[in-house]
Amino acid sequence: MRQLDQAFAALADPTRRGIVVHLARGEASVSDLVGHFSLTQPTISSHLKVLESAGLISRRRVAQLRPCKLEPERLKAVTDWLEQIQAIWEGNYKRLDALLAALKQAQKPERRK
Amino acid sequence: MRQLDQAFAALADPTRRGIVVHLARGEASVSDLVGHFSLTQPTISSHLKVLESAGLISRRRVAQLRPCKLEPERLKAVTDWLEQIQAIWEGNYKRLDALLAALKQAQKPERRK
Repeated sequence: MRQLDQAFAALADPTRRGIVVHLARGEASVSDLVGHFSLTQPTISSHLKVLESAGLISRRRVAQLRPCKLEPERLKAVTDWLEQIQAIWEGNYKRLDALLAALKQAQKPERRK
Repeated sequence: MRQLDQAFAALADPTRRGIVVHLARGEASVSDLVGHFSLTQPTISSHLKVLESAGLISRRRVAQLRPCKLEPERLKAVTDWLEQIQAIWEGNYKRLDALLAALKQAQKPERRK
């Protein structure tokens, strides 16, 4: 529950979503991201912290670098939740369609040969 | 962009996600929701306001009632965004797999008959 809260909250910012799109294409260092988004390093770092606490990205240490990597499992948890809603909604529509079809059928004047 | 910001932010709360799940099953009045979630009417109303500004639900006026209805289009916009990320990510994996296969092929000692 808490994990979904954090993931949704982290994705509610356009720069953070931009970072996620960028990392979906491959790992990137903070300086890559600073260059790409034309933002200051502290701004990028604070966005990365939010994404990291939400489990959406991870950072490993390689010498002086700390490349950032997308964590697709957490994104999948968010997508799964949304798909569950869609399934419930579509299930309703299917039931409604069936009900309407049954009503139409019941209203048809009986034809006698 | 702003619409996605609001939708993600609205979904970052477990009660609001609960309301969305409930409304996916069909329209509900505020009192239905108050009963279902054992929360006060002002609390439910304030959550509904957030969901409504985010375009995730709508409310129509029927006599004294204002039934709440899920707006699946906005939810779909959120799901579409997440699926786009997954597609970019999976595209990368496919390219990486192809590259690794090509490297393996290139490293194979040539066999002469």
